[in-house]
Amino acid sequence: MAKHNDDICRTNRRAVKDTLDVIGGKWKILILLTLKDKPHRFKELAKEIGITSRMLSKELQDLELNKLIEREILDTKPIGVEYSITKYGSTFQGVIEALRDWGVKHRKEILK
Amino acid sequence: MAKHNDDICRTNRRAVKDTLDVIGGKWKILILLTLKDKPHRFKELAKEIGITSRMLSKELQDLELNKLIEREILDTKPIGVEYSITKYGSTFQGVIEALRDWGVKHRKEILK
Repeated sequence: MAKHNDDICRTNRRAVKDTLDVIGGKWKILILLTLKDKPHRFKELAKEIGITSRMLSKELQDLELNKLIEREILDTKPIGVEYSITKYGSTFQGVIEALRDWGVKHRKEILK
Repeated sequence: MAKHNDDICRTNRRAVKDTLDVIGGKWKILILLTLKDKPHRFKELAKEIGITSRMLSKELQDLELNKLIEREILDTKPIGVEYSITKYGSTFQGVIEALRDWGVKHRKEILK
Protein backbone atom coordinates (compact mmCIF):
# COMPACT_ATOMS: atom_id res chain seq x y z
CA MET A 1 0.00 0.00 0.00
CA ALA A 2 1.37 3.40 -0.93
CA LYS A 3 1.76 5.43 2.21
CA HIS A 4 1.68 9.18 2.39
CA ASN A 5 5.31 10.13 2.10
CA ASP A 6 6.13 13.21 4.16
CA ASP A 7 9.58 13.61 2.65
CA ILE A 8 8.25 13.76 -0.88
CA CYS A 9 5.63 16.26 0.25
CA ARG A 10 8.26 18.44 1.85
CA THR A 11 10.47 18.29 -1.24
CA ASN A 12 7.58 19.13 -3.53
CA ARG A 13 6.54 21.98 -1.32
CA ARG A 14 10.05 23.36 -1.23
CA ALA A 15 10.29 23.22 -5.03
CA VAL A 16 6.96 25.02 -5.48
CA LYS A 17 8.03 27.62 -2.90
CA ASP A 18 11.34 28.12 -4.72
CA THR A 19 9.48 28.88 -7.92
CA LEU A 20 7.04 31.23 -6.22
CA ASP A 21 9.95 33.06 -4.60
CA VAL A 22 11.34 33.84 -8.03
CA ILE A 23 8.15 34.68 -9.90
CA GLY A 24 5.71 35.38 -7.07
CA GLY A 25 3.00 37.98 -7.44
CA LYS A 26 1.11 38.44 -10.65
CA TRP A 27 3.32 40.84 -12.57
CA LYS A 28 6.44 38.75 -13.14
CA ILE A 29 4.57 36.02 -14.94
CA LEU A 30 2.79 38.58 -17.12
CA ILE A 31 6.10 40.26 -17.93
CA LEU A 32 7.68 36.95 -18.97
CA LEU A 33 4.62 36.13 -21.03
CA THR A 34 4.80 39.47 -22.81
CA LEU A 35 8.54 39.29 -23.48
CA LYS A 36 8.29 35.71 -24.73
CA ASP A 37 7.36 36.72 -28.27
CA LYS A 38 9.52 39.78 -28.75
CA PRO A 39 11.67 42.27 -26.87
CA HIS A 40 9.88 45.34 -25.55
CA ARG A 41 10.81 48.87 -24.58
CA PHE A 42 10.00 49.88 -21.01
CA LYS A 43 7.02 52.03 -21.99
CA GLU A 44 5.55 49.47 -24.37
CA LEU A 45 5.74 46.91 -21.62
CA ALA A 46 4.08 49.17 -19.05
CA LYS A 47 1.27 49.98 -21.45
CA GLU A 48 0.68 46.43 -22.61
CA ILE A 49 0.54 44.96 -19.11
CA GLY A 50 -1.16 47.89 -17.42
CA ILE A 51 1.37 48.34 -14.62
CA THR A 52 2.76 51.54 -13.11
CA SER A 53 6.32 52.55 -14.07
CA ARG A 54 7.46 52.31 -10.50
CA MET A 55 6.19 48.78 -10.03
CA LEU A 56 7.44 47.68 -13.45
CA SER A 57 10.91 48.97 -12.71
CA LYS A 58 11.07 46.95 -9.50
CA GLU A 59 9.76 43.80 -11.15
CA LEU A 60 12.20 44.07 -14.05
CA GLN A 61 15.09 44.47 -11.62
CA ASP A 62 14.09 41.28 -9.78
CA LEU A 63 13.72 39.34 -13.02
CA GLU A 64 17.09 40.59 -14.24
CA LEU A 65 18.78 39.60 -10.96
CA ASN A 66 17.43 36.09 -11.41
CA LYS A 67 18.68 36.10 -15.00
CA LEU A 68 15.23 35.52 -16.46
CA ILE A 69 15.34 38.67 -18.57
CA GLU A 70 18.05 40.96 -19.90
CA ARG A 71 18.31 44.61 -20.68
CA GLU A 72 19.95 46.05 -23.74
CA ILE A 73 20.91 49.67 -24.20
CA LEU A 74 20.05 50.73 -27.75
CA ASP A 75 22.25 53.15 -29.62
CA THR A 76 19.33 55.34 -30.64
CA LYS A 77 18.54 58.99 -30.09
CA PRO A 78 17.39 59.34 -27.36
CA ILE A 79 19.08 56.27 -25.91
CA GLY A 80 16.59 53.42 -25.63
CA VAL A 81 16.40 50.42 -23.35
CA GLU A 82 14.97 47.16 -24.48
CA TYR A 83 14.08 44.14 -22.37
CA SER A 84 14.09 40.59 -23.62
CA ILE A 85 13.73 37.13 -22.23
CA THR A 86 16.93 35.10 -21.65
CA LYS A 87 17.44 31.49 -22.54
CA TYR A 88 17.01 30.68 -18.86
CA GLY A 89 13.83 32.77 -18.77
CA SER A 90 12.35 30.69 -21.54
CA THR A 91 12.68 27.54 -19.41
CA PHE A 92 9.74 29.10 -17.60
CA GLN A 93 7.56 28.56 -20.65
CA GLY A 94 6.06 25.31 -19.34
CA VAL A 95 4.73 27.01 -16.23
CA ILE A 96 3.21 29.85 -18.24
CA GLU A 97 1.53 27.42 -20.62
CA ALA A 98 0.09 25.45 -17.70
CA LEU A 99 -1.27 28.68 -16.18
CA ARG A 100 -2.74 29.74 -19.52
CA ASP A 101 -4.37 26.37 -20.21
CA TRP A 102 -6.00 26.30 -16.82
CA GLY A 103 -7.24 29.88 -17.25
CA VAL A 104 -8.87 28.98 -20.57
CA LYS A 105 -10.65 25.99 -19.02
CA HIS A 106 -11.64 27.95 -15.93
CA ARG A 107 -13.28 30.71 -17.99
CA LYS A 108 -15.32 28.12 -19.90
CA GLU A 109 -16.29 26.45 -16.62
CA ILE A 110 -17.39 29.72 -15.05
CA LEU A 111 -19.36 30.86 -18.12
CA LYS A 112 -21.28 27.59 -18.21
CA MET B 1 6.38 35.08 -42.14
CA ALA B 2 4.73 34.65 -38.76
CA LYS B 3 3.82 38.07 -37.46
CA HIS B 4 3.46 38.99 -33.81
CA ASN B 5 -0.21 38.44 -33.19
CA ASP B 6 -1.62 40.93 -30.70
CA ASP B 7 -4.94 39.12 -30.36
CA ILE B 8 -3.29 35.87 -29.34
CA CYS B 9 -1.13 37.76 -26.87
CA ARG B 10 -4.15 39.43 -25.35
CA THR B 11 -6.01 36.12 -25.07
CA ASN B 12 -3.03 34.39 -23.51
CA ARG B 13 -2.57 37.22 -21.07
CA ARG B 14 -6.22 37.15 -20.11
CA ALA B 15 -6.06 33.39 -19.49
CA VAL B 16 -2.95 33.69 -17.32
CA LYS B 17 -4.58 36.56 -15.39
CA ASP B 18 -7.72 34.50 -14.87
CA THR B 19 -5.66 31.74 -13.30
CA LEU B 20 -3.70 34.14 -11.12
CA ASP B 21 -6.94 35.73 -9.95
CA VAL B 22 -8.07 32.36 -8.63
CA ILE B 23 -4.85 31.09 -7.10
CA GLY B 24 -2.81 34.30 -6.76
CA GLY B 25 -0.40 34.71 -3.87
CA LYS B 26 1.74 31.92 -2.60
CA TRP B 27 -0.55 30.24 -0.10
CA LYS B 28 -3.32 28.91 -2.33
CA ILE B 29 -0.98 26.86 -4.44
CA LEU B 30 0.69 25.43 -1.34
CA ILE B 31 -2.71 24.56 0.13
CA LEU B 32 -3.77 22.75 -3.04
CA LEU B 33 -0.43 20.96 -3.12
CA THR B 34 -0.84 19.81 0.48
CA LEU B 35 -4.45 18.68 0.07
CA LYS B 36 -3.66 16.82 -3.14
CA ASP B 37 -2.49 13.67 -1.35
CA LYS B 38 -4.95 13.50 1.51
CA PRO B 39 -7.58 15.57 3.36
CA HIS B 40 -6.30 17.66 6.26
CA ARG B 41 -7.74 19.14 9.41
CA PHE B 42 -7.41 22.90 9.76
CA LYS B 43 -4.64 22.72 12.35
CA GLU B 44 -2.62 20.10 10.48
CA LEU B 45 -2.78 22.27 7.40
CA ALA B 46 -1.69 25.40 9.26
CA LYS B 47 1.23 23.56 10.81
CA GLU B 48 2.36 21.82 7.65
CA ILE B 49 2.32 24.96 5.51
CA GLY B 50 3.48 27.37 8.20
CA ILE B 51 0.66 29.88 7.81
CA THR B 52 -1.26 31.79 10.48
CA SER B 53 -4.80 30.62 11.32
CA ARG B 54 -6.26 33.91 10.25
CA MET B 55 -4.61 33.84 6.84
CA LEU B 56 -5.37 30.16 6.32
CA SER B 57 -9.03 30.72 7.09
CA LYS B 58 -9.24 33.45 4.48
CA GLU B 59 -7.41 31.39 1.85
CA LEU B 60 -9.57 28.31 2.47
CA GLN B 61 -12.70 30.41 2.06
CA ASP B 62 -11.52 31.73 -1.30
CA LEU B 63 -10.61 28.25 -2.50
CA GLU B 64 -13.96 26.89 -1.37
CA LEU B 65 -15.83 29.69 -3.16
CA ASN B 66 -14.02 28.76 -6.35
CA LYS B 67 -14.91 25.12 -5.77
CA LEU B 68 -11.29 24.00 -5.67
CA ILE B 69 -11.56 22.53 -2.19
CA GLU B 70 -14.40 21.34 0.03
CA ARG B 71 -15.01 21.22 3.73
CA GLU B 72 -16.53 18.34 5.59
CA ILE B 73 -17.87 18.46 9.13
CA LEU B 74 -16.78 15.32 10.97
CA ASP B 75 -19.05 13.66 13.48
CA THR B 76 -16.33 13.48 16.12
CA LYS B 77 -16.05 14.81 19.64
CA PRO B 78 -15.22 17.68 19.54
CA ILE B 79 -16.68 18.28 16.08
CA GLY B 80 -13.90 18.29 13.49
CA VAL B 81 -13.57 19.97 10.13
CA GLU B 82 -11.63 18.42 7.31
CA TYR B 83 -10.61 20.00 4.02
CA SER B 84 -10.08 18.10 0.82
CA ILE B 85 -9.44 18.86 -2.81
CA THR B 86 -12.41 18.67 -5.20
CA LYS B 87 -12.40 17.06 -8.61
CA TYR B 88 -12.22 20.55 -10.09
CA GLY B 89 -9.35 21.40 -7.76
CA SER B 90 -7.37 18.49 -9.07
CA THR B 91 -7.52 19.93 -12.61
CA PHE B 92 -4.98 22.33 -11.16
CA GLN B 93 -2.48 19.53 -10.84
CA GLY B 94 -0.73 20.35 -14.13
CA VAL B 95 0.07 23.87 -12.98
CA ILE B 96 1.44 22.64 -9.66
CA GLU B 97 3.62 20.08 -11.38
CA ALA B 98 4.99 22.70 -13.74
CA LEU B 99 5.81 24.97 -10.76
CA ARG B 100 7.46 22.10 -8.91
CA ASP B 101 9.53 20.98 -11.88
CA TRP B 102 10.82 24.46 -12.48
CA GLY B 103 11.66 24.88 -8.79
CA VAL B 104 13.71 21.68 -8.83
CA LYS B 105 15.67 22.81 -11.89
CA HIS B 106 16.11 26.32 -10.50
CA ARG B 107 17.59 25.06 -7.23
CA LYS B 108 20.11 22.95 -9.19
CA GLU B 109 20.95 25.94 -11.36
CA ILE B 110 21.49 28.23 -8.38
CA LEU B 111 23.60 25.69 -6.46
CA LYS B 112 25.90 25.15 -9.41
